[in-house]
Amino acid sequence: MALKPPQYADILKAAQRIEPFIHRTPVFTSLHFNRLSGGELFFKCENFQKVGAFKFRGACNAVLSLPKHDGEKGIITHSSGNHAQAVALASKMNGYKATIVMPKNAPKVKVNAVRDYGAEIVFCESTIQAREETAQKIIAETGATFIHPYNHPDVIAGQGTAAKELLEDYPDLDIIMAPVGGGGLISGTAITAKHLKPKIKVIGAEPELANDAFRSFQSGKIEPVLRTDTVADGLRTSLGELTFDVISSHLDDIVTIAESSIIRDMRAVWERMKMIIEPSCAVPLSAILDGKVDVEGKKVGIIITGGNVDLDNLPW
Amino acid sequence: MALKPPQYADILKAAQRIEPFIHRTPVFTSLHFNRLSGGELFFKCENFQKVGAFKFRGACNAVLSLPKHDGEKGIITHSSGNHAQAVALASKMNGYKATIVMPKNAPKVKVNAVRDYGAEIVFCESTIQAREETAQKIIAETGATFIHPYNHPDVIAGQGTAAKELLEDYPDLDIIMAPVGGGGLISGTAITAKHLKPKIKVIGAEPELANDAFRSFQSGKIEPVLRTDTVADGLRTSLGELTFDVISSHLDDIVTIAESSIIRDMRAVWERMKMIIEPSCAVPLSAILDGKVDVEGKKVGIIITGGNVDLDNLPW
Repeated sequence: MALKPPQYADILKAAQRIEPFIHRTPVFTSLHFNRLSGGELFFKCENFQKVGAFKFRGACNAVLSLPKHDGEKGIITHSSGNHAQAVALASKMNGYKATIVMPKNAPKVKVNAVRDYGAEIVFCESTIQAREETAQKIIAETGATFIHPYNHPDVIAGQGTAAKELLEDYPDLDIIMAPVGGGGLISGTAITAKHLKPKIKVIGAEPELANDAFRSFQSGKIEPVLRTDTVADGLRTSLGELTFDVISSHLDDIVTIAESSIIRDMRAVWERMKMIIEPSCAVPLSAILDGKVDVEGKKVGIIITGGNVDLDNLPW
Repeated sequence: MALKPPQYADILKAAQRIEPFIHRTPVFTSLHFNRLSGGELFFKCENFQKVGAFKFRGACNAVLSLPKHDGEKGIITHSSGNHAQAVALASKMNGYKATIVMPKNAPKVKVNAVRDYGAEIVFCESTIQAREETAQKIIAETGATFIHPYNHPDVIAGQGTAAKELLEDYPDLDIIMAPVGGGGLISGTAITAKHLKPKIKVIGAEPELANDAFRSFQSGKIEPVLRTDTVADGLRTSLGELTFDVISSHLDDIVTIAESSIIRDMRAVWERMKMIIEPSCAVPLSAILDGKVDVEGKKVGIIITGGNVDLDNLPW
């Protein structure tokens, strides 16, 4: 059965389903960045979400959507990032066992974070193929359910609930922006925003070094990511079929950003807004401050994706 | 005319006076720190206040309380910390000229921050005596008004408005805590808290290396700070007569904290709560996590004082 992207009704259901489990995160503003940009910026702070990232919304919705007899056979994913922590915590909250397949060279801080949320970790070689084979083997043995980090309707629906909250708080946004990695967040954001406000502009922002979504948006087919060395470690993945479908049909633009701008603006947010954001979060702000998106006199919502960084390895 | 500490009526007036100029800062919670402590902790996030610190409340109240003909002669203070930025911005908002006397070896990041808020900076030798003489000379020449960072009734009244907001949001706190430097914040906090809720416990927390308030509280007279090498750079000052008066009469306890605990818990807040706090902010939390304040089953308010740190010189 071919998967289909969620519709706004699914995002509404997701919002009801996950509401008791998530934080309704605050929206911050900054006179400094308003002055610099000429617009009025509204930062939806998913760095203050559980597990420190918006990923908890999607994982939580996917886990809660499972029939109990499936959940009891276990949940599995392969990731070394925020999705792994999100699946681990969402599973734990439901009393399900989570297994996370991670490359054996994954940073210790990420391994420990997943373990702290009670998941079992299975290590494998650090190739995509090894990850997938290892996961498939466990699925065959246990009947566990695989939750993809973005190419999954329930995950996309969950991610769309952040934009729903933001537009409830600030209904008169002219533009809404999010970074693009695998495309789960921007897809959920776009479905929500275009449903609630058809005239809103939805703009994705991506590192120049991982510009696969930009190229896919231009060419009309999924282009793979060619390099994995951007500082924005949450954005190193290629699109999936579902997210490519939504991005092609719902987005107004995708812009790409230089590494130096990402680091500059990540640091600027730390200094000016006193909150910890991952490099990925800075990408939409950089798009504005580098003049790639004109926000003069406009109200702009930006989804701040997460705050999980290794404090011993800052990029400045 | 001898100065007297403010009363709660003054804090009420301060709240009305500064309300259009300040942020009503959010209150954050953390399941992680609740679990570690056995209590329920409510963090009043003054790191998200204008200029990144609670100091803006007091400076703003003092500047707004000045008769216009005094304000027009200028405002002056000597400080290289958050109070300098606070006075600079509060003056600028009122169209008054601010002069900040700073030691010539003050960190460039602090000099630039004050200059960004439009204040004039006058450099002097890095002794207290040089600062005071330089300030006195300018006052004699211009008639500018000196705003002391803590030993000033309007400043103390302004600082007390943070606790007022916190107790409005969470009226059933059992304990309220703040760090103690010069004592302005804990004094305003204590006057507010004991007025609104006489049975609440008010506890100050101080670095072991700058334990002058602890010693003053024990001995019944102002004891000078003996060392200025604590990592909690906001807490290196001695009490003033006004703040000593309030601390002696209103506090339930003052506890002191090791440097290693301050650094540990500053980092833990960054990692777990995704917000940037100064070392000073960690001191009350360390008091709890080191078992120096028993919070088992209690609701505890903690004033998070500020988020101005030099990202190139982190203490870990």
